[in-house]
Amino acid sequence: MKTDNTKAQMRKGVLEMCVLSLISTGEKYPSELLDQLKTADLLVVEGTLYPLLNRLKDAGYLEYEWRESNAGPPRKYYRITPEGETITATLQQAWSELVQSVQLTLENPTSNE
Amino acid sequence: MKTDNTKAQMRKGVLEMCVLSLISTGEKYPSELLDQLKTADLLVVEGTLYPLLNRLKDAGYLEYEWRESNAGPPRKYYRITPEGETITATLQQAWSELVQSVQLTLENPTSNE
Repeated sequence: MKTDNTKAQMRKGVLEMCVLSLISTGEKYPSELLDQLKTADLLVVEGTLYPLLNRLKDAGYLEYEWRESNAGPPRKYYRITPEGETITATLQQAWSELVQSVQLTLENPTSNE
Repeated sequence: MKTDNTKAQMRKGVLEMCVLSLISTGEKYPSELLDQLKTADLLVVEGTLYPLLNRLKDAGYLEYEWRESNAGPPRKYYRITPEGETITATLQQAWSELVQSVQLTLENPTSNE
């Protein structure tokens, strides 16, 4: 058991929620998502983000369209589907409950003694 | 892709950190840990906790001794090892950074636009 694995596990689930949350506020293209995740220190490489976007699309939570940009080649713009909106709200709720649970655990480690 | 899987992933990594954190504040026996996790709504069944404790022991983060209790059969008391203390601090730090990152992502979804 490596600490790195545990840290990676903690990040894996929340990354999906964050990607969905970012796209749910307005359509995004991949490099934009990478920048925003990096700004939040949720550092993700393209090799992680692209398969994640594909999985979320295949699950019916996202859809995309190619569109031309002013500055270079066409971009894949992702937007949230109605089903994706529902899932995003569910995951955000689960996350907020988890954060509270952990806080309770760390603050009152012997309350049940 | 099921939402339940994503929620389970989010919980999996933090559960290890919580178990280590609880034991790092003083030795604990399994049913005591179950109660404390349940109080914090980090509901865990014995079938999840026991293998987790074994993995943490095998990794050298925990050790235990059997000791008699006033009220029934002997109990397995787990305590943290010096290596476990280090890991616990690392995981708590990683968790707190993750919470901050997610908060930043959810609060400023388009800050990089």
